[in-house]
Amino acid sequence: MPDSLSTETAAPNLPRLRGFIADLTRLVERHGDDEAAVLDAGRGLLAGLIAVDDWLPDAYARPDPVHYRQYLLHCDPYERFSVVSFVWGPGQRTPIHDHTVWGLVGVLRGAERSQRYDLQPQEGPLLAHPPEILNTGSVEAVSPRIGDVHAIANALADRPSISIHVYGGNIGAIRRSMFDPLTGRRKPFISGYANAALPNLWDRSQPVHHAA
Amino acid sequence: MPDSLSTETAAPNLPRLRGFIADLTRLVERHGDDEAAVLDAGRGLLAGLIAVDDWLPDAYARPDPVHYRQYLLHCDPYERFSVVSFVWGPGQRTPIHDHTVWGLVGVLRGAERSQRYDLQPQEGPLLAHPPEILNTGSVEAVSPRIGDVHAIANALADRPSISIHVYGGNIGAIRRSMFDPLTGRRKPFISGYANAALPNLWDRSQPVHHAA
Ligand SMILES: [Fe+3]
Ligand SMILES: [Fe+3]
Ligand SMILES: [Mg+2]
Repeated sequence: MPDSLSTETAAPNLPRLRGFIADLTRLVERHGDDEAAVLDAGRGLLAGLIAVDDWLPDAYARPDPVHYRQYLLHCDPYERFSVVSFVWGPGQRTPIHDHTVWGLVGVLRGAERSQRYDLQPQEGPLLAHPPEILNTGSVEAVSPRIGDVHAIANALADRPSISIHVYGGNIGAIRRSMFDPLTGRRKPFISGYANAALPNLWDRSQPVHHAA
Repeated sequence: MPDSLSTETAAPNLPRLRGFIADLTRLVERHGDDEAAVLDAGRGLLAGLIAVDDWLPDAYARPDPVHYRQYLLHCDPYERFSVVSFVWGPGQRTPIHDHTVWGLVGVLRGAERSQRYDLQPQEGPLLAHPPEILNTGSVEAVSPRIGDVHAIANALADRPSISIHVYGGNIGAIRRSMFDPLTGRRKPFISGYANAALPNLWDRSQPVHHAA
């Protein structure tokens, strides 16, 4: 097999994702009980991951014609955190929802519109914050402590947008809520994942062969 | 979607594999520096995993017509250990090889023939131990400390055999050796893996929905 430089090949740069996962594992191991510390350092790690768009395999970047998709990329073996690729086609959006755990949203490709909401003390209409545009490279945080209810939409009308999300749990398995903005009424949901298979990040036989 | 008991469905029992991975992670975290302790407790965990053949997804149980296959099921985020499904068709065997890290081999389906070897102090013919038959449910250990050179073959002429292996590293990425039994000469190799995608063990939306 001929040698090839990574800049000359379309193969995804999996070591970047592998390094991110090891760094996050260390962070959660050391500071998992301190949400502010995890969000602070995690924001920097996620910003580093999405600063270069060379590592996401195509299978986890494919939009669905109808609904946004969430592809699990990695779950911590103790389910302390998960890393998910969200792909929105033009016009696609999430319902208004919460997370119940901390979360970080980093835009890898395109742009997204984030709309945050506050719940009323009693059931009643949600209070909408001004919408924000998240451009490629930006990172947003959510959690029950700092504000946990939002909706995200693709801000682009002509192509998909992709963001990489990190959550303080196995987000696809968590019981959480969608909200009716007019009444504030909750509807329970569990999101699951779109993919039955994860990327194999661990076949380093090619790079190891090529190393000195 | 109709409710269904897990005994009535062909869906793989992924919680069994998920629990094994969490248990192994804990073991390596606590005793990773004590090989004898890891092999001792790991042997029990692996015996428990292979005691019931209801959890391996079909995609990781498929033989190749020509060569044995190794499918990565899980790699620790720090590459402290890996879990691999080895599938041998009739007549298929590994070359004589070493591991350089501890390993456990547990037979999930069928039967395997294990042939151990000792190296000579100087280069020279390998010294063969008596071959052993590993039946379904049995577990064998290897390591540089207790004997690291062997070959494994399918012991059945009419159907595949499958064993689940655990290694003290990312085995597909480790530089190790194959041996010529007549001369004892080494040939370096890195095995890699047959699969570009791992099973998604973390989509618990169905069981979580069904829980009370
Ligand atoms: Fe969200
Ligand atoms: Fe072996
Ligand atoms: Mg620890």
